[in-house]
Amino acid sequence: MSEQHDVVDVIRAKRDRAGLSDEQIDWVVDAYTRGVVADEQMSALAMAILLNGMDRREISRWTAAMIASGERMDFASLARPTADKHSTGGVGDKITLPLAPLVAAFGVAVPQLSGRGLGHTGGTLDKLEAIPGWRADLTGEAMMRQLDEVGAVICAAGAGLAPADKKLYALRDVTGTVEAIPLIASSIMSKKIAEGTGALVLDVKVGSGAFMKTEQQARELAETMVSLGTDAGVSTVALLTDMSTPLGRTAGNALEVRESLEVLAGGGPTDVVDLTVALAVEMLAGAGRPQDEGEVRAALSDGRAMDVWRRMIAAQGGDPDAELPIARERETVTVEADGVLTSLDALAVGVAAWRLGAGRARKEDPVQAGAGVEIHAKPGDPVRAGQPLLTLHTDEPGRFERARAALEGAWTVGPEQSGRPAGSVVLDRVDADAAASGEGSRA
Amino acid sequence: MSEQHDVVDVIRAKRDRAGLSDEQIDWVVDAYTRGVVADEQMSALAMAILLNGMDRREISRWTAAMIASGERMDFASLARPTADKHSTGGVGDKITLPLAPLVAAFGVAVPQLSGRGLGHTGGTLDKLEAIPGWRADLTGEAMMRQLDEVGAVICAAGAGLAPADKKLYALRDVTGTVEAIPLIASSIMSKKIAEGTGALVLDVKVGSGAFMKTEQQARELAETMVSLGTDAGVSTVALLTDMSTPLGRTAGNALEVRESLEVLAGGGPTDVVDLTVALAVEMLAGAGRPQDEGEVRAALSDGRAMDVWRRMIAAQGGDPDAELPIARERETVTVEADGVLTSLDALAVGVAAWRLGAGRARKEDPVQAGAGVEIHAKPGDPVRAGQPLLTLHTDEPGRFERARAALEGAWTVGPEQSGRPAGSVVLDRVDADAAASGEGSRA
Repeated sequence: MSEQHDVVDVIRAKRDRAGLSDEQIDWVVDAYTRGVVADEQMSALAMAILLNGMDRREISRWTAAMIASGERMDFASLARPTADKHSTGGVGDKITLPLAPLVAAFGVAVPQLSGRGLGHTGGTLDKLEAIPGWRADLTGEAMMRQLDEVGAVICAAGAGLAPADKKLYALRDVTGTVEAIPLIASSIMSKKIAEGTGALVLDVKVGSGAFMKTEQQARELAETMVSLGTDAGVSTVALLTDMSTPLGRTAGNALEVRESLEVLAGGGPTDVVDLTVALAVEMLAGAGRPQDEGEVRAALSDGRAMDVWRRMIAAQGGDPDAELPIARERETVTVEADGVLTSLDALAVGVAAWRLGAGRARKEDPVQAGAGVEIHAKPGDPVRAGQPLLTLHTDEPGRFERARAALEGAWTVGPEQSGRPAGSVVLDRVDADAAASGEGSRA
Repeated sequence: MSEQHDVVDVIRAKRDRAGLSDEQIDWVVDAYTRGVVADEQMSALAMAILLNGMDRREISRWTAAMIASGERMDFASLARPTADKHSTGGVGDKITLPLAPLVAAFGVAVPQLSGRGLGHTGGTLDKLEAIPGWRADLTGEAMMRQLDEVGAVICAAGAGLAPADKKLYALRDVTGTVEAIPLIASSIMSKKIAEGTGALVLDVKVGSGAFMKTEQQARELAETMVSLGTDAGVSTVALLTDMSTPLGRTAGNALEVRESLEVLAGGGPTDVVDLTVALAVEMLAGAGRPQDEGEVRAALSDGRAMDVWRRMIAAQGGDPDAELPIARERETVTVEADGVLTSLDALAVGVAAWRLGAGRARKEDPVQAGAGVEIHAKPGDPVRAGQPLLTLHTDEPGRFERARAALEGAWTVGPEQSGRPAGSVVLDRVDADAAASGEGSRA
């Protein structure tokens, strides 16, 4: 078969800072999915995209081509509007767990297709699998039925959505081309648009525990994704949120489920509650069912969100009343001086939780349900020498040493007068108007 | 086996504009040769090198690592000093044919390892294979014997020299990463240094028919290569030479052998003679046997160079008195107006000769010995409407049409007063001092 384009011409064009035409993009994404464009050609193109950027038109077309490589879901038959959330990943980020039932409690369907963790960021499915009996894999039919009857579902994405993205993501992972904003944005948005949600809220994390280390990078990614969603007819908003320190007081699978249950019971750490409420307000507004913040908070304290949670867990075979797994071994990490905790590094805590067994190094590795890190003081809290700062949990005591090594230098204690209230977890908001004033992603 | 480096870290370092350490370079070149680093990883690294450059130390180390991947030749046992020439490739570039015997006529051994043509530039071995009986493949032993007895040999490079370069060149060819000066320079120089020559003269072509389209690019490449040679203890000089119009009056295999014989008989086109003499003067000086230009020209007119040629051809099985092949079909291309020929584009003539059958599109294709283009007027020559400008030669008349298409707009004719003598073919000279004042290759 004769191909319409020469892949070397396409690579050269991007290498030499020319824009790729719509036809070139459609062809190269399709030809890569078919195996006509080889891995070594796509990785050279990915590096050229990383270093030379793509403009908004190119990113939008690239995303559309990845969507076109697979199936699309359609929730038009549901009686309720739909809203979805995507987080770029952080340490202690259990927000999906209380958020999905909270939004569903207001009559908006939440079809939350989630992933497993890799490296120091946890995966939502890994956390929920700590609940005895709970199953991540649902048929499309079961998913629709649950959305109709319960209003919320958190499950694994089927293999049919954006297969081009799956192939390209695996390639980027081994070729140093993950950190390209056009490719990150199109990867996330191709899956989210193919999932067919009506409204989408993006939680773009910033800081040591996040993929985007600076607010500028995070803003660029947020603007790019909001534009892509808006152009595709999805009501899309992004919040930039702090990931310099872990979210909440736990990092680990069962530990985070337990903290989520506290939030659903009307308690829980302030930062987790604040972010859950902020994202719920955006999702409800995007879905055309606006609620003020007070009303959303009330649904946490009066049990409405917890009711949806229990039905959501039960619908997927889980026992909402079962005891959660507890790690067999624990060790405490203490503070060495009196004063105020001035920082607690998210990346270090994430790596420690990972090394304790909460995460995996390779896709095929299992995770420990009980492993992770409990956090007893947050930045801004006064501390005393000898006080427990962290509790490390694992089933295998041999893991403590490397976890402690990851925590070397992970926090700072200052004089008491340096104490100030911790800032808001939500740093900024990017809507379609803000995104339109951006200029695309140029390296 | 555990590897010393993570290839993704190496790729990321160059992607993020850091210098690669000596250890990283040694490892990645070796690991790629062994197949531990995959093609898709090396192509991403090659693109990062193309876009972010390498400094002199990195290029030098990369070259050394490619040399270390294979065998090295050693001419120390020869009674004569050695000198070698490398051209970056152009249209009508038959210079090696008269040059090797000319230099050998002064007692300097010329071990000229050459290649075949690909695309619009011809290959020296393809040209010589137009001579009935001539063989390109020699054992190392036969090569040494011929250098000792005749003084000049032009033959195919063995597979043992710089295997890392062979693998990397094939990869660059399909991934849009050929045009990286650090990679071009290290590819050429790893082979030339591994060949063990004592002196090296580089003919770096500039213009439409050359790889380097601008004098600035050519100068950067020349400086980089001269530095690499000098650092490796090889006496190295580069000439920047004009490739905006074909060299001489022929492009094609047997056609160029015939023109070379004219030069060896004391005649031939001025530009071919001038460049042959200029390169010979540099090679002789580099080898420690300096000769002035007049003496070198004399060796062409008095038959000394022709004597070496005849022995060199005969030593490789060729019959120096055999009739050269002639193409079965010919067509003439005429000038459309009176005036002066103001340009004749090298690339267009090269592509026409290639399409007539003189070159190959794929490595495994055969070439026609008789095919090519004869040039009847050079830029600066007065022309008359209807006068033949080019004669096209091929065995297959079906090829004329596409060859003529390549020549569309390939020349310009101006008013008579625009005529001026053509400039010198040698544009500039880059020696070790000039190269040392450069700053490496940054994109």
